[in-house]
Amino acid sequence: MKQNSFAVIGGDFRSVMAAQQLAEAGFSVRAYGFDNTCALPSDVVLTDTLNEALSHSFYMILPLPALAPCGTKINTPLYSGEILVDDFIKLLPRECFVLGGMLKNPLTEYLKEYHIPFSDYFLREEFAVANAVPTAEGAIEIALHETPYTLCGSSCLITGYGRIGKLLAKDLAALGASVTVCARRPESLAWIQANGFTASSFAHLEENISTYDIVFNTVPAPLFCGEMLRKIRKDTLIIDLASKPGGVDFEDAARLGLNVIWALSLPGKCAPKTAGAIICDTICNIIRETEVGV
Amino acid sequence: MKQNSFAVIGGDFRSVMAAQQLAEAGFSVRAYGFDNTCALPSDVVLTDTLNEALSHSFYMILPLPALAPCGTKINTPLYSGEILVDDFIKLLPRECFVLGGMLKNPLTEYLKEYHIPFSDYFLREEFAVANAVPTAEGAIEIALHETPYTLCGSSCLITGYGRIGKLLAKDLAALGASVTVCARRPESLAWIQANGFTASSFAHLEENISTYDIVFNTVPAPLFCGEMLRKIRKDTLIIDLASKPGGVDFEDAARLGLNVIWALSLPGKCAPKTAGAIICDTICNIIRETEVGV
Amino acid sequence: MKQNSFAVIGGDFRSVMAAQQLAEAGFSVRAYGFDNTCALPSDVVLTDTLNEALSHSFYMILPLPALAPCGTKINTPLYSGEILVDDFIKLLPRECFVLGGMLKNPLTEYLKEYHIPFSDYFLREEFAVANAVPTAEGAIEIALHETPYTLCGSSCLITGYGRIGKLLAKDLAALGASVTVCARRPESLAWIQANGFTASSFAHLEENISTYDIVFNTVPAPLFCGEMLRKIRKDTLIIDLASKPGGVDFEDAARLGLNVIWALSLPGKCAPKTAGAIICDTICNIIRETEVGV
Amino acid sequence: MKQNSFAVIGGDFRSVMAAQQLAEAGFSVRAYGFDNTCALPSDVVLTDTLNEALSHSFYMILPLPALAPCGTKINTPLYSGEILVDDFIKLLPRECFVLGGMLKNPLTEYLKEYHIPFSDYFLREEFAVANAVPTAEGAIEIALHETPYTLCGSSCLITGYGRIGKLLAKDLAALGASVTVCARRPESLAWIQANGFTASSFAHLEENISTYDIVFNTVPAPLFCGEMLRKIRKDTLIIDLASKPGGVDFEDAARLGLNVIWALSLPGKCAPKTAGAIICDTICNIIRETEVGV
Repeated sequence: MKQNSFAVIGGDFRSVMAAQQLAEAGFSVRAYGFDNTCALPSDVVLTDTLNEALSHSFYMILPLPALAPCGTKINTPLYSGEILVDDFIKLLPRECFVLGGMLKNPLTEYLKEYHIPFSDYFLREEFAVANAVPTAEGAIEIALHETPYTLCGSSCLITGYGRIGKLLAKDLAALGASVTVCARRPESLAWIQANGFTASSFAHLEENISTYDIVFNTVPAPLFCGEMLRKIRKDTLIIDLASKPGGVDFEDAARLGLNVIWALSLPGKCAPKTAGAIICDTICNIIRETEVGV
Repeated sequence: MKQNSFAVIGGDFRSVMAAQQLAEAGFSVRAYGFDNTCALPSDVVLTDTLNEALSHSFYMILPLPALAPCGTKINTPLYSGEILVDDFIKLLPRECFVLGGMLKNPLTEYLKEYHIPFSDYFLREEFAVANAVPTAEGAIEIALHETPYTLCGSSCLITGYGRIGKLLAKDLAALGASVTVCARRPESLAWIQANGFTASSFAHLEENISTYDIVFNTVPAPLFCGEMLRKIRKDTLIIDLASKPGGVDFEDAARLGLNVIWALSLPGKCAPKTAGAIICDTICNIIRETEVGV
Repeated sequence: MKQNSFAVIGGDFRSVMAAQQLAEAGFSVRAYGFDNTCALPSDVVLTDTLNEALSHSFYMILPLPALAPCGTKINTPLYSGEILVDDFIKLLPRECFVLGGMLKNPLTEYLKEYHIPFSDYFLREEFAVANAVPTAEGAIEIALHETPYTLCGSSCLITGYGRIGKLLAKDLAALGASVTVCARRPESLAWIQANGFTASSFAHLEENISTYDIVFNTVPAPLFCGEMLRKIRKDTLIIDLASKPGGVDFEDAARLGLNVIWALSLPGKCAPKTAGAIICDTICNIIRETEVGV
Repeated sequence: MKQNSFAVIGGDFRSVMAAQQLAEAGFSVRAYGFDNTCALPSDVVLTDTLNEALSHSFYMILPLPALAPCGTKINTPLYSGEILVDDFIKLLPRECFVLGGMLKNPLTEYLKEYHIPFSDYFLREEFAVANAVPTAEGAIEIALHETPYTLCGSSCLITGYGRIGKLLAKDLAALGASVTVCARRPESLAWIQANGFTASSFAHLEENISTYDIVFNTVPAPLFCGEMLRKIRKDTLIIDLASKPGGVDFEDAARLGLNVIWALSLPGKCAPKTAGAIICDTICNIIRETEVGV
């Protein structure tokens, strides 16, 4: 049945893994936008043409991000050719459902114009939660790699107690680090204490900043600049996990000789198999909810 | 300065502890609505009359709940006398701020009518978060007390992954229990897995319910009734932590000979000192936000 | 086959549970020294006479402790009658293996004289390790019950880092307590730090003792007496887990108005089912090693 | 006073860090056997001659290992010159105490002959315990780096429950991995269960080996060879932490295309600062015990 058929169009190793998981779950999966050398699993059919992939499928899976920076092509880092958004739109069957990550214009405009249902899995809360796991583990890998001492016994600061901050605090404390989390909202401070960590407000950050061996920033706001940067010890490692524009004045930090690592997109880099499984799981959640009309 | 003065009017041991903490923080604290035998700390002044307490204070602290069940008296379990809401209102100074828990009519109507600012600390998110700690510890104390086996090695189910479910899962797993958490929303299931527990949907609950040694319910909905109750093993302990009406058909469970404990208001019962400190902390948060005009 | 047959003679609920577990493992199990009201499981045969139990069995399971304080009777707290050691010895078949806890004279002398093989499961290291779990959980239950505050956020001291100290430190830290462990040997201090706790030497104990909310003693030596006792805060809870003579000068502590709880034999009291399973597991280990000639 | 003076002779970055820590603790520290470029801390005096370092010091700190493979020179990886053991011996003052790691002949023979007291810090139990922390963290860094999935949700096997196995099990479980530990002795199996992990005996290892994503071996015995190797999945990562000869038939594993990493000497590689601090701490313990005559 066509309703159980997926076309995975472009993407990196995460898309390959998502294709594999869908096939393992018993779905019919076609792929396009990958070179022959990509080692797709045997039960995923790499089609010769885009049309072949799309015309036999109901669910169209676009990568994360769905589009190349130019905005007119699908994002196909594992493909020596190219897929124009225009071509993709033209070849879409009348009945289909498009699922992609970070969907944007002109693609979404087209889809609306042609009344094609679509969903952006990147916007789903469970997607963000699940990806916080590889992000936290990636941050720990960086910390282990970059420091000449053990995390056990080290003094770590985490700024922000959102998804990544929560998991990072748990993991670092379990490894024996002394963990302080800096947050703004009273309920965040209550959670930090309830979980057994030291809670700190941003008001007291500057006076204590020199006591930390490692600083993990998760707040996408200019927190580490000016005076704050000058109070940080030279041997403190700063790992900035905040999405653009980040939370560190990188140029100033470089001038001061601080060791700052801006760690972006860790899930795809550190745990692409898990990241692909998360895409697959989120897609399945979206489909299930659509089916039952939630 | 009057602005730094508190009147603590009625309440149980939590109010006594809140009064003590406020006094230790350097505030001037008067108390009324407690018998002499209550062992108030020496720096809290137990006044002879209600007027004496109110007229010298700016912040009026009412207990949790603020009113006795009748609704016309302040809740004063540690006082052999009584305090009528009418009297309390009449004696309030023109300038004051009333802070209480579970405030309701006619008290709130009066306060609005007389343009007296007030705030219900029970409605604050950080209050609920902080109280989840003594609730989870109280639930663990019950489980330790009621079972002839260790939590280490036991198989525990938690239904619901809100504040209490989150802390309970963490604590039980740390003690060596195998922890399954049942939740509805995809992001809750993602969090459960991210934290290393087994996630289960309610759809599969009935078929697995007989595998659990202890069930902790935190969902205030009729979950454990009918067929579900009949699938629970006779030696399974059920601890219902959900507020009224609870999640268990208690009568039916009793008929079936199941061991159900409905554990309500654990913070005040198991850790009144902590519960009092939480009231004090939340009051201070409210006052701070009012001052800075947040 | 007789080699797979067990006689469980006397004991408390732990013996009942051990009998049940042996029966569930497929062995033939006879029991004697229990009243009819003991609710033995249906596949354990309560015999009418001691001879009936012993003559059909190869493994003779005595309780913990095996003997009543007088030394001449088997320890039978769940039996209105009595079993003389002399009778037990006389009725033992020529070929058998006696397993008991805290075996002592005259029983062991008899067994040696008659060349009857025997083993004391109480002396096995894995028995002691496994029983540290219910002991630690029992200590936590006491701490939860006796304190008006939560363990989360409390400051706990553990003296000694043996079996119980290790598990207690892990559990308390996981519940959010700040955990300091006091030990003597450098390798113990290294382990304490490796596990992420604060290590302290006994030399600094007295100067810091007033900072702890709860003290768990596991050292069977006179640690808490004289000056040390006088430095402990009146609201500190002391839980002494050390076997006789304990580590606290109880009389002096009582004079000082300190809250001391001497918690002995927690496994049998708090988790008899687990304690019975541990007896059963240890017996099976002993038998297996005897068979393979380890 | 000379008794408070140290000569740090040769070694890698760990020796540099040990020298720094000793200086920070207030001792007088001379160093020899390092190039000028080694960035020794300012309060450590890099002497021009070996004699200058030795003649002013009481405690002589040799590196880990103390000798170069040839056995006739001190191990000086950060020095472009060389230090002959013969010269070291000749220049030793009459009163001194030599502390080194993995001391062996001819050095120890000399020391005995000249009645010079010495101690091997590598043989101390607290040294081994403390070094298990950087070893476990190094193993986790390797696992994070080498796998395309997260440790959270992965299935990990640890063979052996000694120092490294204990810490690794704790850390991996805390990160959300499912942890099985394989051990031989009944008390080890009891500890594994008491700590909340899955215990497995070696008898059942081969039948379950294909279920694990990552295998951490800590047993220095030929465990992973022959049939066992053939049952391991091709995508399983094997990290061998056992000292020589290791626990894996590396050649056979390579033939089978298995991913095996033999991770030796992780403390010095992954956390040299911590490893240096451990040397310093152990030295201080030895000196303290010598002084008080323990």
